[in-house]
This record gives sequence, structure tokens and C-alpha cells, in this order.
Amino acid sequence: MKKNDEKNKSQIEKVRKNNYKTRRVTVSKLENILYKSFKVLDYGFVRVIDYMGDDSSIVQAARVSYGKGTKKLNQDKSLINYLLSHKHSTPFEMNEIKFHIKLPIFVARQWIRHRTANVNEYSARYSILDREFYMPKKVDLKPQSKSNNQGRSGELSEDEKNEYIKIIKETSSKSFQSYKELLNVDEEEQKIDTKKIGIARELARMTLPLNTYTQWYWKIDLHNLMHFLALRYDYHAQYEIRVYAKIMLDILKKWVPLTYEAFVNNRLNSESISADGIKFIKSKIHNKKFNSKNISKRELENLKKLFEI
Amino acid sequence: MKKNDEKNKSQIEKVRKNNYKTRRVTVSKLENILYKSFKVLDYGFVRVIDYMGDDSSIVQAARVSYGKGTKKLNQDKSLINYLLSHKHSTPFEMNEIKFHIKLPIFVARQWIRHRTANVNEYSARYSILDREFYMPKKVDLKPQSKSNNQGRSGELSEDEKNEYIKIIKETSSKSFQSYKELLNVDEEEQKIDTKKIGIARELARMTLPLNTYTQWYWKIDLHNLMHFLALRYDYHAQYEIRVYAKIMLDILKKWVPLTYEAFVNNRLNSESISADGIKFIKSKIHNKKFNSKNISKRELENLKKLFEI
Amino acid sequence: MKKNDEKNKSQIEKVRKNNYKTRRVTVSKLENILYKSFKVLDYGFVRVIDYMGDDSSIVQAARVSYGKGTKKLNQDKSLINYLLSHKHSTPFEMNEIKFHIKLPIFVARQWIRHRTANVNEYSARYSILDREFYMPKKVDLKPQSKSNNQGRSGELSEDEKNEYIKIIKETSSKSFQSYKELLNVDEEEQKIDTKKIGIARELARMTLPLNTYTQWYWKIDLHNLMHFLALRYDYHAQYEIRVYAKIMLDILKKWVPLTYEAFVNNRLNSESISADGIKFIKSKIHNKKFNSKNISKRELENLKKLFEI
Amino acid sequence: MKKNDEKNKSQIEKVRKNNYKTRRVTVSKLENILYKSFKVLDYGFVRVIDYMGDDSSIVQAARVSYGKGTKKLNQDKSLINYLLSHKHSTPFEMNEIKFHIKLPIFVARQWIRHRTANVNEYSARYSILDREFYMPKKVDLKPQSKSNNQGRSGELSEDEKNEYIKIIKETSSKSFQSYKELLNVDEEEQKIDTKKIGIARELARMTLPLNTYTQWYWKIDLHNLMHFLALRYDYHAQYEIRVYAKIMLDILKKWVPLTYEAFVNNRLNSESISADGIKFIKSKIHNKKFNSKNISKRELENLKKLFEI
Repeated sequence: MKKNDEKNKSQIEKVRKNNYKTRRVTVSKLENILYKSFKVLDYGFVRVIDYMGDDSSIVQAARVSYGKGTKKLNQDKSLINYLLSHKHSTPFEMNEIKFHIKLPIFVARQWIRHRTANVNEYSARYSILDREFYMPKKVDLKPQSKSNNQGRSGELSEDEKNEYIKIIKETSSKSFQSYKELLNVDEEEQKIDTKKIGIARELARMTLPLNTYTQWYWKIDLHNLMHFLALRYDYHAQYEIRVYAKIMLDILKKWVPLTYEAFVNNRLNSESISADGIKFIKSKIHNKKFNSKNISKRELENLKKLFEI
Repeated sequence: MKKNDEKNKSQIEKVRKNNYKTRRVTVSKLENILYKSFKVLDYGFVRVIDYMGDDSSIVQAARVSYGKGTKKLNQDKSLINYLLSHKHSTPFEMNEIKFHIKLPIFVARQWIRHRTANVNEYSARYSILDREFYMPKKVDLKPQSKSNNQGRSGELSEDEKNEYIKIIKETSSKSFQSYKELLNVDEEEQKIDTKKIGIARELARMTLPLNTYTQWYWKIDLHNLMHFLALRYDYHAQYEIRVYAKIMLDILKKWVPLTYEAFVNNRLNSESISADGIKFIKSKIHNKKFNSKNISKRELENLKKLFEI
Repeated sequence: MKKNDEKNKSQIEKVRKNNYKTRRVTVSKLENILYKSFKVLDYGFVRVIDYMGDDSSIVQAARVSYGKGTKKLNQDKSLINYLLSHKHSTPFEMNEIKFHIKLPIFVARQWIRHRTANVNEYSARYSILDREFYMPKKVDLKPQSKSNNQGRSGELSEDEKNEYIKIIKETSSKSFQSYKELLNVDEEEQKIDTKKIGIARELARMTLPLNTYTQWYWKIDLHNLMHFLALRYDYHAQYEIRVYAKIMLDILKKWVPLTYEAFVNNRLNSESISADGIKFIKSKIHNKKFNSKNISKRELENLKKLFEI
Repeated sequence: MKKNDEKNKSQIEKVRKNNYKTRRVTVSKLENILYKSFKVLDYGFVRVIDYMGDDSSIVQAARVSYGKGTKKLNQDKSLINYLLSHKHSTPFEMNEIKFHIKLPIFVARQWIRHRTANVNEYSARYSILDREFYMPKKVDLKPQSKSNNQGRSGELSEDEKNEYIKIIKETSSKSFQSYKELLNVDEEEQKIDTKKIGIARELARMTLPLNTYTQWYWKIDLHNLMHFLALRYDYHAQYEIRVYAKIMLDILKKWVPLTYEAFVNNRLNSESISADGIKFIKSKIHNKKFNSKNISKRELENLKKLFEI
């Protein structure tokens, strides 16, 4: 284990010993994992740093309540389900969660497009990045998909996989070595060679590859977190961001179990069916004829697959 | 005391007895007042419902830390001051606070223009509003300002004040009476007269005056809260919103004392001086001539007042 | 016709005579109605003041093009349909439209909750509002809905309608009269009585009823406009805002006909079906049994209605 | 000139021949440069694709006007100056501009943190990036600043510069070569070698260095553009983003000359002075004593420099 890792681990252990009293609503399942580091990919992680609210906070806000705002569990559950399925977003915005996340830069570049979150990223203008880059596992190395211009599918030979892994490793290694040479810092000790002067960090970083790990604090409200998860847990999303979404989905379940359930049913596993699609489904239910010219080929295929027609 | 008020008071007392354990950072001065109702104007109030983070959370995020992120108090204080005075907004976005606020509709209409907050308003489509409208105190009744097109200043005679108070009271009363007639609910019992049918709530509300009280849950991050307070505690803001900002400023001080101090010095009591203004001040310091044509009259007056020239 | 109306009309006629040359993409059907006032309710209107982009701008942005970015009409149409149905929102954000809208305050209060637009509202702190308030037509006066807590449905007797119309009219009239008395301006001439001093405009406005007309400039990108229209043209929305959405939907059709078509098919007339709902539909297509406990009663009814089961 | 460059150039020439009629306000100085490519760094550029509004649109919105909204030039100028110096942001949000920008990825990562813009980026999941990476000029290669943890200052020897330039060039070249090998595309022809299968584009891109050029459509309103320019034209900003801000500042001047003037005076060259700073300046004007403990050392130095004390 590297020095930095040990230091980080000990810092985490220390804050996990926090024990305070509060009048705020708390979620014991989330408290249990607070500050804990959930590993993602090779060097990445997701940690919950703080949170605001629980399932009851959603109904409390929806009812603009003076007290807890909750009624019977069944009524609360039904209200949450109603709000979520009818796209009433504001009560879900009343909960907030803060993460500490470590991720490759090319994943961070997709992630940051969600503009509704608050972000504090580790600055490579200010600090020197660790020699950590993402190396895909062989099983995740796949050719360009033929049907999906933005994805991967199919298989490579073992030789091809070995070759590509080697290229990624060597290129990333070489780039990190250049980074250190440009900074004029020694790889092991990170001390400065007294004979030469390196270039500024804001410049040296430009040779770093896109699989370099960065990290940030990322804070978002529950409504926008669900929007993020719906898009990034989707099978169209890149594998390397989906694995983060998966971990966060598990965290969502611990945090707000009623909302999680409504979310899975009404969003994650739901389907939006177009006006044309509704006509097609109706024709199938009522055994009527349907002119397939009235619907796009892509949508027709999706519907047939979805409803096993 | 009205029935509703009693019920609300008892609900507040109940949640104030909450006593949970948490690993999250807590602020004892804010815990002390959690859920408490601070009176504003005649029927309005401000209550803190929940919060996320304290002063240490700002430095923790700025340092993208694995643990607490704090160093010595002096270093934290100095960092917060630096971040705030150099307009680094993202670390302040890492704290969040949730309020329950009751306020006249004309105040709510100014308030809602701050788009970065999350809001859940009590719905007059769904519920019947209480018979509560804002009556200004005599001391706050003033004529239109002659210098400020958007403000009030000067004095009215006692007779004028009495007359205007009477008009506001009678008109508001009459409007509320019409509201109840349109809904066909009895003022005291709120029961429906069986002989007639009232019109829908979403329609009946249209006769309500703009001084009717509404209420909402309002959640905002620390950066945007300070932006709100800087604009709404300003003397250009309408008195009826400034009194809310004042209470929230006191809450800010309890919540994040280091940030509060930096905010007062660098924002609330700071001044932005234009390039022209800098030249003028320079001429005063060095006793040089200054051609006053190079600066707007309004700015010149402001600077003279500010620097007691 | 009132003086103000004449002045406004002549100003509109003047800008409609604008005739400039531009390299920017233009939409002739939208140019035809530019600045024109479309009447809504009794005193309200919608006017298009400016716009940026057309259908081709969406594909141009999606393709990050150096030139027009368009290919064959069929390919563009298909791409727009794909982008919209797969929730790729960013290319639609590349178009922008600016409206001048006059609307009752209670409608404005719903409208403003869409935070992604830019707004400049006529200020009653700065100016005196005209004596214009919304009077519903008799046909739109309905009782509170029994099934929908937020809506109206059913019928009133002619006598009831007459009574309620009278109440709204008299209360609004009285409120406006008080407003003028508080300001100490003469109703007709709007001159100030020299013997008395009125109170400041920011105070006097508080007696105005919620059906008073206000107006604003409202600018929004195409993606968020469609989101607004999907929510506000929905039959759950209040009638008085739906009539605005209807006009704006017609404008959308003139502006970006391909997008409009995709929007109507994939959003306006589409349906989001939950995981449970999908199972139910599947059971109907394949004539299998379905345990209705696994789905909410409300959703089941909706699906039966939608698919005529 | 490469094939792609020729194609792009011809596409630009073609749209520059657009000649349409419009009723919308136009800005001839901006029309002159519409679609034109302004070179930045080695491969980067800034192009204006579309715009909405001019200086008159700001006063038109501020006055919620039925027509042009402009009065005498002097009054408009004075109003714009007042709005900008008093932080009335909404009228400036009524103008919008759309850019096509090509920039190194490490610059894009800073840029994207401005969340209020609309962005469509060229996707390396979908397309293969050109072999274009940023090579700093020798004159811009500088050591880490000793006073500013985030900047560069001082000088390197000619030998050091040559060495560092060589490292950047070789590392970037090697990384691009690996990219092509991973994709299994031939550098010149971009054809696929039939014997082997490359890996998916979304994976291959991970070896690309941060100085690789990307491009996007970027659309923003005038208020937020000024906020971006104030932060990114600041001397604390990295040189490689400041050169973009410089070009955009020139464009701002062509587009809205009155706003530009007010912006330079009240924002770009203005200074925010803290409450402590005001006391210090006052002591200098009135020749009074000042206890320097009451102000941070950093601020004191800034003020002395600014006012030449």
C-alpha cells in the first residue's frame, strides 16, 4: 500500500468514529456506510460524505408541514409513488446528498455534463496528480458496435486483447513519465531536482492521458440524482460510468427505500411509448390491423422486444 | 389562539424533541434553534428545517479531502476568507440549508426570482388559504421616494396613515370575504352550505389580495444564500423582504460563523468601485486634479459619501 | 380603445415594418407573425419578439458542423426524431425564443416556477399598473372537482354563475379603486391630488387581487420550452395557463415544424408506462392472467382507458 | 492543407454567402464576421454562429416594451450603465450568442465548469478525433509560480525549453499513434485493416492526451458571457483560456458596444473593496492612522498597488 493510501485510509477511519447528536432526520442504513469507500474500476471509488433528508422529508415538503409531515406508511408510500410517476419534481429536490468520487478523466467529462450538481474537483493546476490510470479488464475490451455508433459489442481474440492492453499500459506509463519529467519531480520521492527547473503544473498536465484518475466532491439533490442515474445506468451509457451508477443506485436504496422502489418501477424499468407506439400496441391487444409505415422501424423493434410480440 | 396555530405549535414542539445520533458534522448553535419559528412581520415566520455542513465542510471540499479537511483554525479562517473574496463559489455550494417560510404573496413574488433555490409552495389549488393578510405598521407606511423610483421615503401625516391603514384593512377583509363566498365555505366553520355549490379553489383564489400570506419550503446552498442575502438585505430592497433577510443573516451567523464574518467584510459591507471610480479615489489620495466629467454623477456622489470626502 | 392601447398598437406596427438583412438562419412563417399580439383570455396576449435558429440549427449543433449541418430532409427529420425520443436534450437547447406575454398574476405565479427561462417582469414598484383584471367567462366557472384535488369539473346553475361573476367583478373593482386611493392618483387622469400624499407604489400594490394583469419578457431555449408546454398543455394544468400553452404550441409549429411533429408524437401524446404497467399490457396482448394487486388502481384505470381495454 | 480543413473552409464560405431578410434586430458589425473562424493557439478557433439581440434589446426588456424600447442614445447608454453597475442581471439575459469553438481538452475542462451555457460537444464515442494536439510556444513555457500556487511565472533556459517542447511533442505523438493502433485505423487513410479488429472508440480515446483538441457549440446569454469573461480574462486564469476570452471580448465589443463599455468600466477594470479596505483607503484620504492588523496582508498589498500608495 502506498503512503498516500495509508494516510487516506486513516483519515477515513477517523471520521467514521464521529458520534454527534442531532435533531435532524437521520437514516441509519446510510449512517452505517457514511464516509466508507466503495471501490469502482481499478482505482476509483464512491463515498457518501453527507446527506440531507429521508423518505419522510419528501412528504413533509409536499405537504408544507409544520412537523414531520408523515401519515401512515402506506399513505406516504402512495404519495411518493404518485409524485414520482406524475413528474412532481420539487418535493424530491428537498433531499440532498454529497459524494466524494474518484474516476478517470474521460468518465468525469461525461459526468460533468449534468449541470445541476455542485462540484469541487481536485486541481492539477494546484497539485500533482498521482500515477494512477484506468486499465480496462480484458473482459471489458470490445470492438466498436456495428448497430450502435456510440457503443461496443462483440468479441476480440485473446491475442488482440493482449496487444491492446499492452498498448494502453505502455502509452499511459510513458505519458505519466513525461508528466514527471516536465514537472521535474522524481517519481518516487516527488522531490525537485536542483539542477533543472520544471514547467508549471498547469502546463505539465497536458500530456496526461484521459484515463488518468481525478477526484471531486459532488453534491446533488435527489430529483437530479435520479435523473443522472436514469441516464447513466441505462445500457446505452458507457460501461465505465454505469459501474459508478450501479454503486450509487445501491446507496439510493439505503437512503430512501420508498423513493427507490417508485423510481425503479416508474423510471428505471418504465418505457415511454409514443402516440404511434400506443396505436400499434392497441392493434395488438384488439387484434386489429396496423400499417407499420406509421411508425419508425427502430421503435417497432423496441416495442416487439419489450412486449415479446 | 386559533385552532390551526395550536396544532402547528404542538407539531413543532414534537419535532424539537428529536434526538438522533449521526456521523455527520453538526452545528450546535443551529441545532438549538432547529424547527423554531422566528416571527417576521405580522403573520410571517422563518424556520430552519434541516442543514448540511458547517464551516469545516467548506475547507473539506476546497481541499477535496478524505477526512475532515480542516487544519488549524487560523488556516481554515484564512482559506474561507480567501475563497470568498476571490469569488471561488464552488466550496460554498457544498453546504445546504432548508427553510420553512411564511410570507405575503407580493414578497414571495420578489423572492422566487432567485432561481437557484428549491421550492415547495403551499398550493391554493389544493387547499383553502387561512384568512391572514399583511397589515403594515403605521411607521412603515411612507410616500413614494422622490430620488428612488422603486422605493419609499419621507413621512405622511397621522391622518393620512390612519386613512390608508383603514383602506388596506377594509379592502383585504372584503377580498377574503369574497374568497369564502366564492368557495361557499363558512368563515368560522369552513363547512359547505348544502344549498349552493362554490367554484373551484383554483378560481376562487383570484380575488385574494397580494398581501395574503403564503408559505413554502425553500432550500438553497450557502453560496446562493449569500447572494440572496447580499441583494435582499441591501437598503435598495423592499422593507418587507429585508426583514426576512435580517433574520436569515442571524441564522447564517449561527450556522457558519467564519463564513459569516468573511461575508460581512467582503460582500455585505464591501463596495465595487469602477475603473473611473478608482481614478477618482487615486486623485484624492495623491491630491491630484480630477475631471469629474469622466464619472457619472450618481457614482461620484456615492464615492464621496462612502469615503466621507 | 384606451390611450395606452393605441400607443402600444402603433409601436407594434412600427417594429413590424423592420426590414433588415442577415446571414443568420430565418424562419419565414415566424417572421410573418413577429411582434404580432395573439390575444389570450380577456386582456392577455403572447407576442414573439425574437428567435434564434430553426430545425436545421438542431442538426447543425448535433453534428457540430462547420456549415449548415443539414443533409437530406429525411435524414434531418429522422435525426430530430431520434434525438427527441432518446432524450438528447442539448441540440434542442441550441434554439432560443423570446416572448412578450401579458397574463394574470395567479397564472404568472405558476409560470415562474419554470426556472430555466429568463424573465423581465413589469415592476409595480416602479410603475402603476393598469386597471385590468381577469374576468372568467361563465362557461369556465366550474365547481371544485371531486376526483381531482387540484382541478375543476361539473356544472353550476345559471344563477350561481351570475352571482359568482358579480362577486369577482365587484371585489376586483373595489380592490383597484383602493389601489388608486392608496396611490392618490385619479382613476381617469392619473394625476396626483395636491392636497394629499399617497403611499409608495411598492406598498399600494398589496391590495391588488391575484387576477390583476402583469406582463413580462420571457426567453427560453427550445428544449425547456417543450418541457414547459408538455406540463402546461397537459389537461391537469389549470385552464387559464393551458390557453397560453395552446397559442405557444401553434407558434412552435410555425418555428420548427419537424421538431413540433416529433414532440407531439413522442412527448405530448406519448405515455410513460411503468414496469408494472408493461407486465399488465403484456398479459393483455398474450391473453395471460394478471394479478391486479401488483399495480396501483389509478394506473390500472389509466391504462384501461388508454388502450381501450 | 489537409482534406478536412479544405472541406470545412468551403462549408464556412458557403454559409457566409447567406443573405436573408428579417424583422429581427441585427448588428452589422457582427454580421460581418458571422461564421468566420478566429484562430486561437495553434489549432483552436472561435466562430460566431448565431446571435439574438443588440444593445437596444437590453433596454427594450428592461422597459418591458411593446416596440423598440429605446429612447435617446444617451438615455439608453445611461440605463445600461446603471443596470450593469447595480447588478440588474435579467435584462442582459435577454441577449444570446452561439459560438463554435475548438480548444484543447484541458481548456475545455475548465470552460465547462460554467454551468449556465448550452453545450454540444463533438463526441469521441461517435467519431474519430483528428491528430491535432496543442503545442505551447516556447515563450509560453514557464516554471511554476512561487507566489501563485495555480500559475506560472519566471523563465526557463533555452535548453530547458527545447527539452520540454520535445517531451510534449513526442509524448503526444506517441499517444495519438496508440489511439490509431487501438482503433486499428490507418493514420493517412483511416481505413480499417481487414486482418484485425480495433477496440471501440469510447475505449480507444482513453490514451489521448489532455492537449488533444476537441470542439463544441457553446451558447450563452449576455449576462453569463460577461461573467465568464470577467473570470477567464482575469490574469489569474490560465493563459490558454485567456486567449479565447480575449477574442470573445473583441466580439462582445462588436455586438453590444454600449454594454461592452459599461462592462469594462464596472466589471473588468473595477475592484471590489472590503469593509476593512474601505477603512484603509479612508485613512489614506484623510491622513489618519490605520492599524494594519485589521486587514489581511494580501489585501493590503493589492490596495497599495492599485492606488499607488
